[in-house]
Amino acid sequence: VSELPGGATSTPESLATTGSAAWVTAMLDVERALALAAGRVGLAPDAVATAIAAACRPDDIDLDAVVRCAAEQATPVIELVHQLRALVPESARPYVHLAATSQDVVDTAMVLVTRRTLGPVLDQTAAVAELLAESATTYRDAPQVGRTLLQDGAVTTYGAACATRLVAVDDARTRLAAVVRDRLGLQLGGAVGTLAPAGDRAEAYLAAVGAELGLPVPVTAWHTTRGRVGELAGACAVLAGELGGVARDVVLLSQSAIGEVEVASPGGSSAMPGKRNPSSAVLALACAHRVPGLAASLLAGLPQELQRSAGAWQAEWGTVTDLLRLVAGATHHTHRALDGLRVDTGRMRAHVDALVAAGASADPGAAGVFVDRALAAHRDLGKVAS
Amino acid sequence: VSELPGGATSTPESLATTGSAAWVTAMLDVERALALAAGRVGLAPDAVATAIAAACRPDDIDLDAVVRCAAEQATPVIELVHQLRALVPESARPYVHLAATSQDVVDTAMVLVTRRTLGPVLDQTAAVAELLAESATTYRDAPQVGRTLLQDGAVTTYGAACATRLVAVDDARTRLAAVVRDRLGLQLGGAVGTLAPAGDRAEAYLAAVGAELGLPVPVTAWHTTRGRVGELAGACAVLAGELGGVARDVVLLSQSAIGEVEVASPGGSSAMPGKRNPSSAVLALACAHRVPGLAASLLAGLPQELQRSAGAWQAEWGTVTDLLRLVAGATHHTHRALDGLRVDTGRMRAHVDALVAAGASADPGAAGVFVDRALAAHRDLGKVAS
Amino acid sequence: VSELPGGATSTPESLATTGSAAWVTAMLDVERALALAAGRVGLAPDAVATAIAAACRPDDIDLDAVVRCAAEQATPVIELVHQLRALVPESARPYVHLAATSQDVVDTAMVLVTRRTLGPVLDQTAAVAELLAESATTYRDAPQVGRTLLQDGAVTTYGAACATRLVAVDDARTRLAAVVRDRLGLQLGGAVGTLAPAGDRAEAYLAAVGAELGLPVPVTAWHTTRGRVGELAGACAVLAGELGGVARDVVLLSQSAIGEVEVASPGGSSAMPGKRNPSSAVLALACAHRVPGLAASLLAGLPQELQRSAGAWQAEWGTVTDLLRLVAGATHHTHRALDGLRVDTGRMRAHVDALVAAGASADPGAAGVFVDRALAAHRDLGKVAS
Amino acid sequence: VSELPGGATSTPESLATTGSAAWVTAMLDVERALALAAGRVGLAPDAVATAIAAACRPDDIDLDAVVRCAAEQATPVIELVHQLRALVPESARPYVHLAATSQDVVDTAMVLVTRRTLGPVLDQTAAVAELLAESATTYRDAPQVGRTLLQDGAVTTYGAACATRLVAVDDARTRLAAVVRDRLGLQLGGAVGTLAPAGDRAEAYLAAVGAELGLPVPVTAWHTTRGRVGELAGACAVLAGELGGVARDVVLLSQSAIGEVEVASPGGSSAMPGKRNPSSAVLALACAHRVPGLAASLLAGLPQELQRSAGAWQAEWGTVTDLLRLVAGATHHTHRALDGLRVDTGRMRAHVDALVAAGASADPGAAGVFVDRALAAHRDLGKVAS
Repeated sequence: VSELPGGATSTPESLATTGSAAWVTAMLDVERALALAAGRVGLAPDAVATAIAAACRPDDIDLDAVVRCAAEQATPVIELVHQLRALVPESARPYVHLAATSQDVVDTAMVLVTRRTLGPVLDQTAAVAELLAESATTYRDAPQVGRTLLQDGAVTTYGAACATRLVAVDDARTRLAAVVRDRLGLQLGGAVGTLAPAGDRAEAYLAAVGAELGLPVPVTAWHTTRGRVGELAGACAVLAGELGGVARDVVLLSQSAIGEVEVASPGGSSAMPGKRNPSSAVLALACAHRVPGLAASLLAGLPQELQRSAGAWQAEWGTVTDLLRLVAGATHHTHRALDGLRVDTGRMRAHVDALVAAGASADPGAAGVFVDRALAAHRDLGKVAS
Repeated sequence: VSELPGGATSTPESLATTGSAAWVTAMLDVERALALAAGRVGLAPDAVATAIAAACRPDDIDLDAVVRCAAEQATPVIELVHQLRALVPESARPYVHLAATSQDVVDTAMVLVTRRTLGPVLDQTAAVAELLAESATTYRDAPQVGRTLLQDGAVTTYGAACATRLVAVDDARTRLAAVVRDRLGLQLGGAVGTLAPAGDRAEAYLAAVGAELGLPVPVTAWHTTRGRVGELAGACAVLAGELGGVARDVVLLSQSAIGEVEVASPGGSSAMPGKRNPSSAVLALACAHRVPGLAASLLAGLPQELQRSAGAWQAEWGTVTDLLRLVAGATHHTHRALDGLRVDTGRMRAHVDALVAAGASADPGAAGVFVDRALAAHRDLGKVAS
Repeated sequence: VSELPGGATSTPESLATTGSAAWVTAMLDVERALALAAGRVGLAPDAVATAIAAACRPDDIDLDAVVRCAAEQATPVIELVHQLRALVPESARPYVHLAATSQDVVDTAMVLVTRRTLGPVLDQTAAVAELLAESATTYRDAPQVGRTLLQDGAVTTYGAACATRLVAVDDARTRLAAVVRDRLGLQLGGAVGTLAPAGDRAEAYLAAVGAELGLPVPVTAWHTTRGRVGELAGACAVLAGELGGVARDVVLLSQSAIGEVEVASPGGSSAMPGKRNPSSAVLALACAHRVPGLAASLLAGLPQELQRSAGAWQAEWGTVTDLLRLVAGATHHTHRALDGLRVDTGRMRAHVDALVAAGASADPGAAGVFVDRALAAHRDLGKVAS
Repeated sequence: VSELPGGATSTPESLATTGSAAWVTAMLDVERALALAAGRVGLAPDAVATAIAAACRPDDIDLDAVVRCAAEQATPVIELVHQLRALVPESARPYVHLAATSQDVVDTAMVLVTRRTLGPVLDQTAAVAELLAESATTYRDAPQVGRTLLQDGAVTTYGAACATRLVAVDDARTRLAAVVRDRLGLQLGGAVGTLAPAGDRAEAYLAAVGAELGLPVPVTAWHTTRGRVGELAGACAVLAGELGGVARDVVLLSQSAIGEVEVASPGGSSAMPGKRNPSSAVLALACAHRVPGLAASLLAGLPQELQRSAGAWQAEWGTVTDLLRLVAGATHHTHRALDGLRVDTGRMRAHVDALVAAGASADPGAAGVFVDRALAAHRDLGKVAS
């Protein structure tokens, strides 16, 4: 997937897992689960369920027609279901998309796309944390000037700086992982949330579809109560922001006049051949910069109307897509910035010496204690996760 | 506290708990806790600790000078500590504000102000949920037209509509309560996060200050890792948004052409004497509308610089203040909108009859089942909380 | 260009004019203009200038490599210039990209992409205004209930409602057109804004590049003073918002209980076969909903660092791209909503009669006068434009 | 007006001109103008008009009751008019608030409050520009390292840096001044925009009220077409952002490792006595940081409903108030940062020498030419203004 200019603030992987094909695949996964679950709870004959499930193949879908339908009717599902019905035996057609509405399919597909995209992102975030943990360990006692309001302040250690960022990244990924795991579940309510065509098997059907997809089942449909989307937005924004903090420090400590760190693969310049830019950290900051506006857009869309929103819901689709791409980009570029980062403890010490010569104390206080606390918390987190 | 025009999107209570006096009180609470904790862990003589603690009286502070200091030096704490030192015996002065930096006091005060403001707000949110639970119970089987994209769709019940909003409000307040309880803790790192002047008693001092204030103690200082503030922003925005959803429905169902509900105390008009406006619901929407921009501002401030930020941190103070006021306003006005809401089941049924006459099914499906599920989840939540 | 789900809130045309190929084309247009201008002012031999200009062919560019460069070095231009140099005779290579820096090319390309995308969008906005003007004329004296806070208020005319929206759309497009015409000009400053390699021909070179591209020449380079981008963001957001107002009215007046208008091509539902949704208006609202967050992101990026920003600038590329697509979508879907809109003056009058029967005055006041004023202003605007 | 913590990101002057008293004064100014204009066009007897005008005294208003009314009925005007009627002879009462609706008074008051607050702010912005112009002149040829992505790049001059920021500030204040002058005009439409009670004198009345207040008269009422508010938001955000750019440079060049500038009145630290912080520039950045979220909130509120919005309009009041305060703060603190700024040309030259020693060219190119262009444009602007 080749994209200019958005590709720089994303990753090829996330562009793929959030692209048109990924969305259609996810929507078909939902239709397949509906069919299989309908078979399981007796809402559809087994053979019909199997036939529908077998027909849910992305390659057989005319994507352009689905896209056109979305742009004309404000939902891609009418056309998708229309095509899917044409792919199954006539007797199976009434059982396609059983009891569901467009929003059930789009919302659950959004959940699947989000989970598939954020899985690897959370893994890479863990790798970012690991790099911070390694630096916190290695530089636990390496004195560095602590800078407040960008003025030299008092002595700390580079390990303490890394430990502080480590705690922040660990907290942010723990929260985002919890939102994905616990809150991004199934959407299934039918036309107005009553799942009417499922009759007295509504609860069983709901549970079965959730089981097919491996998704938590909500208490009620959430067609117009979008707190889940808001929580996703908030957790993504916090993670991107904390990664941005890591990247900001790399950029600031890379300044020519400071030169305490340097990224492993600096970027160049088309005008100044010798330039060595902290490009990975800069792109991480660019990703982080773009996230809050998208989060605000999703949060602003929460007060949705009655049984289905006229605008705010439809605005979520593209916004969530962009948000996922940017969080992936923030993680990727922060990882690139930290991986192989050259740390010049000599320059750090020279700056410390100058500060001490000007009257500051050389005592790094409890910097080491805080490093140890952060590393212990990080190890505990690993135990919980594994 | 009289305020125009901001008062309409806030409450007198929250204006009081977030006003100048409340902030100074909270900052003095922090200074008192520092002193008492210093005494307890042996960093200050007991008598000194007691003397400082006794001097932390808001009435003795020249507030104007503190405000001027904030506007001139970008921190109110220099002047506050200066005044506090003048209020204690000379021998106690070196022990005032021990090992702390301005940000420790402002951040912890912000935490205290937030907790004190959101405590009653969360209580009132629980009352909003209770009103929704009552309506879900009362109207469990009252048929209503379900409206999607603001078009009549299929039959549901008013109870199901209330149940769906109930789950959303319960989820949002559960999350916000958790953020307040678990994440809004002590800030204490001293000049650059090393708590250097506390020497080998840094951890003990940290724990003691947390105990004095009844606040969780963080792994490290969070001077520039503001995920906690971001989580607060996100949780507030989700709550305000879900309350906005409740209010939006009241406004829409109150439309003259629909008339299925009416608020107990409609507002009037200066031009149309007979007008009966759903003013409480409108103000709840106004509050909700203002929150996402503030949340974005806080989230955008996350990538802060090195050991203390030059701008993004200072931007938090007023933004958090406004955010708290608006969330209080959203809760208050939503409660006003629901309290005593007149529900016209006759009109609801007439609209249902017309829809059914036009060919729709009269079957409300599993609406009742979903009401029961929501009420059960709501009761479980009550058990956990108590 | 097939895109899911973003395609629904955009248009095929704008996806094309803001896509990868369009950006590369625009960047090559800049490189061509640099070469031709260098030739004209004597900074490059004429034959060299012509040879470079002839080599600026998008089809000869390896787009994937350019995209990779953007993601690795935080600028696509290093690779683009590298490829371009390989396409010209060796003697011409030093004259490629003369005196320019990456940002000059990316910024000017962004200006070109924006102008090329917004040209047709502004034309379609004029068509939206024309539809509003027609309705204002046709329904100048058609009585309608004026609704405030969504409650029936007093009598107005449908023509007056259209006239008010007409003025708003005309104002917004006039402003956006002015920003595009006057503010979106050339960027050319070289490495740090001094255009050093152009020696004493800097001003002449600047003027010549501007003339080649038909772009206004700024007083100084605007590498880190992004007011132009902020003005674009503001003007786009105002236009999208005013179009959203038009669409909101269509959605509200289309409500089943009101039914005063209906879009010409309603959308359907995958769950409720007979549903007639105002899908075009809904999508216009979805587009409008997404714009303010993007505008905020651009505005938040204004305080950029020294001679080139480390993050905020790079964040603009994708954000501007998305913004343009959404404004195109808002215009397209609003036009679809208005084009052929069925207006039911009978229902309007019935609602008026009921309001009057309830005691309201039947007098539409100066509604007609305001229609005439709006139409006159609209005609004056046409005279200015032509 | 003493305010903590918001006072640090505002000014005492703007807190006064946007406070409760200022709003009530402005609302009474509108009521007075309505009365006098009604008298002038024959809608009210002259004596009545004079009596009402004389009664419009803020000191006679019970502010608390007005605030309560705003919080209960979603408009302060019902109570204000109620009190005003009680202050005039009984025969005059029907002529109070003639033909107007609450929104007419609140919107026009908002316009007056905005104009009164921004007048001095624009003057101080001109003073900021003047300081930049002086520095551009003084340091026209003072060599400085140009830094891109915060890495040393190539040689420029400090004068060129100031000139670039000068152009940006001049552009932003020119645009904001134009919005205030041309777009922030009268609101007067009565209940639903038809100005019905004014009968055939509607246009004359409209013109007369505009003349009384010295405000431009719009083509139609703009009760739900809020482009004007959006333009104000955009122009304020651009100005705050460009001022933030000036402040950001001061902060970056003040870094201990660079030390090329120092603010005249540095702030201190409660933990590090010798600290000299660029506090004014930091607060300017804090102000600028808070603006885009507010601008987004206003822009997101544009698609308002039918004849008066149920939420988005009411959300504007407090948001505009905060916006004005922050723009005032940004201007004030930027001025403080520049006024008396110490510029260390010796350190600038030393850094240049080091860069040149490392192989860079010492040629500042056309830096001086761009300074001259910026100063000429600045002078032209002065001529236009005077």
